[in-house]
Amino acid sequence: MKCSVYVATSLDWYIALSDWDISWLDNMPNPENDDFGFSEFMSTIDAIIMWRKTFEKVLTFWFWPYDKPVFILSSKIIDIPNELKWKVEQIAWNPKEILLKASAFGFGSLYIDWWKTIQSFIEENLINEITITRVPILLWDWIPLFSKNPKIQELEHIETSVLLNGLVKSRYKFKTI
Amino acid sequence: MKCSVYVATSLDWYIALSDWDISWLDNMPNPENDDFGFSEFMSTIDAIIMWRKTFEKVLTFWFWPYDKPVFILSSKIIDIPNELKWKVEQIAWNPKEILLKASAFGFGSLYIDWWKTIQSFIEENLINEITITRVPILLWDWIPLFSKNPKIQELEHIETSVLLNGLVKSRYKFKTI
Repeated sequence: MKCSVYVATSLDWYIALSDWDISWLDNMPNPENDDFGFSEFMSTIDAIIMWRKTFEKVLTFWFWPYDKPVFILSSKIIDIPNELKWKVEQIAWNPKEILLKASAFGFGSLYIDWWKTIQSFIEENLINEITITRVPILLWDWIPLFSKNPKIQELEHIETSVLLNGLVKSRYKFKTI
Repeated sequence: MKCSVYVATSLDWYIALSDWDISWLDNMPNPENDDFGFSEFMSTIDAIIMWRKTFEKVLTFWFWPYDKPVFILSSKIIDIPNELKWKVEQIAWNPKEILLKASAFGFGSLYIDWWKTIQSFIEENLINEITITRVPILLWDWIPLFSKNPKIQELEHIETSVLLNGLVKSRYKFKTI
């Protein structure tokens, strides 16, 4: 099973302001509506693993952006809108069990999405690859990409490209897997 | 006056482990002893502004690495070795006064080096440019590149290059200047 992270951060490693505000991501002019390689990345993914908070955030968008199955991690029962029930499912918060279940579904490649979800997979050494797109902004505070982890980890750099307006997008492989 | 920062960080924005340990920077194979553009950067610099702690760290190296005047910021009197007295001087910790003094010396370009020094210049909006080289390692904790600042700052991306072993070196201009 391949587990990938694909995320945008500020230059100083933050992913959101207080109350999960990500409006700073929309401040950058993007006249051609470039998706910065997101759909290419999604074409390599079989399913998405997402924390309840992220799911609630995505529900505020004006459309459902995923054409792949989504599993929602939550310690409490979540209310999934009827029109999403066929492609969204709640799942117990246990990374290793999630991988077993995903395998049983025939999935080989998972997108591990945002914060606590990423964190719990990293803690169990289950992340294979991370793509980080750095936005040229300093937020200074609030919600960092990861919280703490006891073990220093070396990564292998795979590629870096510079996108529209100076977004620096780098892909790394976790060496510990 | 141009004030530049030139620094290496871990992928997650840390510059040192506890007790200012930077040994993780030496772990990367560098068979050709590449300086990653440091001497090219230094050729654009007239003088270096450095915090006492950094000075004490540099004194532990087996050679004095700078051929430019160095001003040391410290709130207490520091002991400068005799052989360095002609090129190292203690200076009061006041960024605006430092710029006045540097101008009086005829300097036009300063290297603002490491942590608290950088921080105090950023707080006064005196940094023009930052070059960050990202080492592909996750340290998770200890000493971040900057501490907090109240004002979100957008930067302008100038260039990014990938060096030996996947060091991602990016240069940014502060827009607020």
